[in-house]
This record gives sequence, structure tokens and C-alpha cells, in this order.
Amino acid sequence: MSKQTLADCCPGLLSAPLNEQDAGELARVFKALGDPVRLRLLSLIASRDGGEVCVCDLTPAFALSQPTISHHLKLLREAGLIGSERRGTWVYYWLLPETTDRLAAILTRPADLAETAPAATA
Amino acid sequence: MSKQTLADCCPGLLSAPLNEQDAGELARVFKALGDPVRLRLLSLIASRDGGEVCVCDLTPAFALSQPTISHHLKLLREAGLIGSERRGTWVYYWLLPETTDRLAAILTRPADLAETAPAATA
Repeated sequence: MSKQTLADCCPGLLSAPLNEQDAGELARVFKALGDPVRLRLLSLIASRDGGEVCVCDLTPAFALSQPTISHHLKLLREAGLIGSERRGTWVYYWLLPETTDRLAAILTRPADLAETAPAATA
Repeated sequence: MSKQTLADCCPGLLSAPLNEQDAGELARVFKALGDPVRLRLLSLIASRDGGEVCVCDLTPAFALSQPTISHHLKLLREAGLIGSERRGTWVYYWLLPETTDRLAAILTRPADLAETAPAATA
């Protein structure tokens, strides 16, 4: 269900120059996060007790149509950030934490860089 | 020199629903990362020994004009991801690690969520 787009991607954004392919994969996920509505949707899904949310509970939080919300959810899903399943009338969504974990790791400075780079104290 | 846009932003993307203002701040930074050229530029700058890079050393890595490269660097700078300084003919860039550190923290699941959410093992 997850596309696991980042499973094989790059040792880390800050430790070595990215190649073009890894940069493309990674940019696609950051681009999905580069929208306030999608960030709010992701945070609503991720922070929900029980771990999943009906789209019927997401739509009322926004002054947007359900097709617009569904479009944003589709982009999050295609980026591997959330999973989804239709049950009867509604679609349910949940966080795919392996993707956010991977992003956090990719953004974390390698220990030697954190210690030696002058910029670390700028 | 840093805008420190994320200094006061949000307890974490995954721990509680983001409000609109925080979502806007955060989306701006993720949007800056949502482009392969900007990610490659950031990784080149971040992984450079010595901690800073002359724009004259960045341009040859890309099949793009210097104005295009400078535009991408400007977006990274405006997002608080890199700092810059002109010295004579050239501009020099360095990573602002407080922003990437903050992003990594924002993307890290709170311990209790990681333990209890069913999605954590999906």
C-alpha cells in the first residue's frame, strides 16, 4: 500500500551531494508537504487517537469542497505519506510513519558534520 | 541573517493538529525543498568541507544558467535553510542547520504515538 519511495533514497541530504534520481524522489515528497492544507491534513491524520481517520471527519475542518480535500489526500498518498482504504461509503486514512521517519533521518546532520562545520554554530 | 521562520512553529507535525499559521510557515520551507535542483544545491552546500561554498563552485554542477541557480539559492535563503554573504565578485553560501534540525524534530513522532498507533507497524 505504501510506495516506500524513500526506502532506497540517499544516505542523507546533508552528508553528501544528492544525485539527480534521489533528488527527484525526495523533491516529490517535500513538494507534497509544501502546502498548508496538506500539512494540516497530515497532522490531523497523524495525531488521531486510534491511528486512522475517516475522510468524513477531515472535511469539516476545512472551508474546502470534498473533491478538493480528496485531491490533497491523493497527493499525500502518492508521496507515500499516508495509506488509505475504502470501507463502504467512506475512505479511511492513516499515517505511513516509515516515510516521515525516513525524512527525519534524511534531514538529520551526521554527527561529524554537526561537530566540525563552522555553520553549526552560526 | 537567518529568518528563523520555524523557531516558534508547532510542537510537531505528527503530535497535534497544526493551526493555519504554523501550517503556512512550515509549508513555505517544505516548498523550498520540493525541487530537485534546490535539494541538490542544499546537499552540495551542507556536505562541503569547511562549511561554505562559493556560487562559482555550485554553478558548474548544473546544466543551468547562473541566474537560474541564483534564483533557486534565493528561495533556499528566504526559507531560512541557508545563509549567504557577498565577498568581492562572488556570493558564498552555508547551511543554517537550525532549520534542518527543526524540520527533523517536527517530522519525528512523539514517543507515545510511536508506541500506540497501529499505523506504526503497518
